Amino acid sequence: MSGQAHTKPARLTVAGVGLIGGSFAVAARAAKIAGEVVGFGRSAQSLETARARGLVDRVTRDAREAAAADVILLAAPLAACAGIAAALAPHARSGTVLTDVGSVKAAPLAQLEAAWARVGPVVGAHPIAGAETAGPAAARADLFRGRVCILTPTPTTDAGALAFVRGLWEAVGARVEEMPATVHDELLARVSHLPHLVAWALVGAAGRARAAGRDPLDYAGSGFRDTTRIAASPATLWAEILLANRTPLARGLSELRAELAELERLVAAGDAGALAQALEAARALRLRLEER
Amino acid sequence: MSGQAHTKPARLTVAGVGLIGGSFAVAARAAKIAGEVVGFGRSAQSLETARARGLVDRVTRDAREAAAADVILLAAPLAACAGIAAALAPHARSGTVLTDVGSVKAAPLAQLEAAWARVGPVVGAHPIAGAETAGPAAARADLFRGRVCILTPTPTTDAGALAFVRGLWEAVGARVEEMPATVHDELLARVSHLPHLVAWALVGAAGRARAAGRDPLDYAGSGFRDTTRIAASPATLWAEILLANRTPLARGLSELRAELAELERLVAAGDAGALAQALEAARALRLRLEER
Repeated sequence: MSGQAHTKPARLTVAGVGLIGGSFAVAARAAKIAGEVVGFGRSAQSLETARARGLVDRVTRDAREAAAADVILLAAPLAACAGIAAALAPHARSGTVLTDVGSVKAAPLAQLEAAWARVGPVVGAHPIAGAETAGPAAARADLFRGRVCILTPTPTTDAGALAFVRGLWEAVGARVEEMPATVHDELLARVSHLPHLVAWALVGAAGRARAAGRDPLDYAGSGFRDTTRIAASPATLWAEILLANRTPLARGLSELRAELAELERLVAAGDAGALAQALEAARALRLRLEER
Repeated sequence: MSGQAHTKPARLTVAGVGLIGGSFAVAARAAKIAGEVVGFGRSAQSLETARARGLVDRVTRDAREAAAADVILLAAPLAACAGIAAALAPHARSGTVLTDVGSVKAAPLAQLEAAWARVGPVVGAHPIAGAETAGPAAARADLFRGRVCILTPTPTTDAGALAFVRGLWEAVGARVEEMPATVHDELLARVSHLPHLVAWALVGAAGRARAAGRDPLDYAGSGFRDTTRIAASPATLWAEILLANRTPLARGLSELRAELAELERLVAAGDAGALAQALEAARALRLRLEER
């Protein structure tokens, strides 16, 4: 199907029916994107929840059955995706499109392309949608409505498959942007991966500190809770994400250190005007986010 | 009134009728803490809002009138409080209790004590209550209900005045704790002042970074918004707070740097298990906050 237009797929398999996969599945059903939406996974309980909630038409734990699809969307934890692709590849028919939702793109996508090389086109995707809650119980059809979904085509990405995957995301309400995987990874390091690392560091440092035997965390107000909310994100999943994007993350951390050093310098200098000016500049950037 | 029990004050003046002062005033009215609650401030508009909303019994912009009270609660921006105390002192009758709500205690409280030395007792207080919104329009009687209010007596603090101020905060529903001002400042540096600095640094660094000409802030999701919500706090007010607590803040920043360096080391080492373990330890601390 190289370069050719894709018609409505008879079958879409979603591998991993958690918040993201389950939401895509139920949105795909609502939008009638595919003739049939199949949920694939390891956890019988998650699959049963997805089936019972009507996120999918049917479920399977069988790789052969899951692979018999026109398009397969991988929505498993980042580190598991290449293994799932490798497990499905021997059973998939030639031309089956593989896509994903991983929050790191460059290296993971190269792994997917290697695993899928003999099967068909691979299109990398990352919908930027909140995930404070997890699992199929939290999935909802409107999760991607109005949200950005980044597609990361490579020079060899099949143009027809790219247009096809773009169509899927637009059908579930996302605003699609395309950029190189490396650019995606630099951007997300700054607005997602680094903030997670910082949130964990803030909680860890505060939790270790003591003042006259008192634990600072006993005096945390709503500001601290907001700032560290993402420190409640699943640790194993996030360890994989941070490792997969370590070089951009290190660059982001280096930039943050420079910013902190400059603010600390202004504090040490005791210049209220200059400090207020620096804080106001960052504040203005933050306020602009509320308008988007 | 040294050391003696205080009876219900005939008049309470609240200097600064913003979120904190206005909420204390209206809660004090609801709890019938004082015979009369007077709002004092510079802004005619804020005072009019406070009066129209019934936060106070009456308002004044006159220092002499404001000083004629049994207890005066300073709820102005941190850097303004010592000046207000100095302006009210010549008009206050001997024994009038001065208290505040400042989020830094050691140095600011010493300034208040100096300004109030010839008048009466000073009791430092800091209610830990959220302030995403500001101004008298956001004030509400239940703001302090169930929240911690820290009192910071010094060795010379009048025992009767301390018990009196404790009673005021308990009457508006706060859970009162006492600790030295220096201990308060160390604790709040970790859970409030440092997180603010970090939020501004995260936004500033992300706002300066570019990847292939793209602005990372255009790709910020709900996690980044949560983590940096407090970067929308008023810059001038916060510059004063950070400067007033610069030494504990520098210690907190140093601890954060060590924590970030250790997490970065684990990322660089590529050990997913060890990294996940470190993140999980911080995650467990964060999850415990939800139970408090």
